[in-house]
Amino acid sequence: MDRRAELKKRIEAFARDRKWGKYHTPKNLAMAMVKEAAEVVEIFQWLTPAQAAKLTPAQRAHLSEELADTFVYLTKIADHFGIDLVDAALAKMDKNELKYPAALNQGRIHKSRP
Amino acid sequence: MDRRAELKKRIEAFARDRKWGKYHTPKNLAMAMVKEAAEVVEIFQWLTPAQAAKLTPAQRAHLSEELADTFVYLTKIADHFGIDLVDAALAKMDKNELKYPAALNQGRIHKSRP
Amino acid sequence: MDRRAELKKRIEAFARDRKWGKYHTPKNLAMAMVKEAAEVVEIFQWLTPAQAAKLTPAQRAHLSEELADTFVYLTKIADHFGIDLVDAALAKMDKNELKYPAALNQGRIHKSRP
Amino acid sequence: MDRRAELKKRIEAFARDRKWGKYHTPKNLAMAMVKEAAEVVEIFQWLTPAQAAKLTPAQRAHLSEELADTFVYLTKIADHFGIDLVDAALAKMDKNELKYPAALNQGRIHKSRP
Repeated sequence: MDRRAELKKRIEAFARDRKWGKYHTPKNLAMAMVKEAAEVVEIFQWLTPAQAAKLTPAQRAHLSEELADTFVYLTKIADHFGIDLVDAALAKMDKNELKYPAALNQGRIHKSRP
Repeated sequence: MDRRAELKKRIEAFARDRKWGKYHTPKNLAMAMVKEAAEVVEIFQWLTPAQAAKLTPAQRAHLSEELADTFVYLTKIADHFGIDLVDAALAKMDKNELKYPAALNQGRIHKSRP
Repeated sequence: MDRRAELKKRIEAFARDRKWGKYHTPKNLAMAMVKEAAEVVEIFQWLTPAQAAKLTPAQRAHLSEELADTFVYLTKIADHFGIDLVDAALAKMDKNELKYPAALNQGRIHKSRP
Repeated sequence: MDRRAELKKRIEAFARDRKWGKYHTPKNLAMAMVKEAAEVVEIFQWLTPAQAAKLTPAQRAHLSEELADTFVYLTKIADHFGIDLVDAALAKMDKNELKYPAALNQGRIHKSRP
């Protein structure tokens, strides 16, 4: 079994073994995910851009945990709806490439934003 | 090349081709990620739990895009620090299993929370 | 001095007395605010709608603190730019009333959303 | 009637006139608030610290609207639970002053953080 399949299985077993399925509705999972994403933000909030780009080992270990939490909830929401995250991201990249043509967006990110 | 490697390559080329690297600092990417996670939240915010669990095709397509955006920024932050999301998530599951022993958390999610 | 003026003064003195002004840039304060707003979300995330509408005294006390934190950062951002929150909210209500005419939005919130 | 009382009245009438009360549960309002806080974050996300501290008039007008939206939802949640935001913030400042003694936190924000 590859590691991604193992992760999916572990995530499912974790909730099943604790009878937490009733909590893990998509609406609740979206709330949990934004909280974890905000914990990623919190790691960087008082750091200068230079400090943020080069974390200490302790900060990096903390970041790794918060990214993991975000990823676990993201995976659970996607799985609930049968969405493959890699497929969805590739489809979104196709769309982004049309929305922000490289020739019109050199070094400027706000250019074609609504 | 597998699809995950393809996605990584596409994400890197997208920023490089637009000279957007200067915007994509970890601090800024964390801000962008929480915004996308909040767009996932927005999809569910006025729905009843029943509506949220069974989206219309249009809502599901919208969700797929917002999950994709969250995943792309999550991937970019992880890549900046050389963090493998699947490894990080498996390590976090180990920790969660110790923190929330199944026997003490049957059907109750707040039990051993701080 | 009224209590709102007192709060403003306390918030300013708190940062000044600790020499934290360098951390409290608008960008950093926006990051801190979304983190606090996500802590409000966290209080409700595993609760049923009924539980969420009628918190226990301990949950209500916790909520009061997280709302306070969100309000403090909101006030700091507004003050930085000389924005009066009550004026801004009244102006936004004018706009909302035009955007969502009551006659066209009876009991349906998604009706005229983009 | 003072302007804060006027705002409270306008916010209540807005929901009542559209029969939106059923949507505005505390749980849903918390979700809406974090989305608006994330829209504040979005304004700053690609700006340098210098650009973020001194917005253009158009950016400032946009910020004013997003701060207003955050404030409206914050007010609605507080009102649901009979919480006075200014009282709650003053009580939190008392607590912060004990938690972060000025003498031990000169110019360093992470010092006594957990």
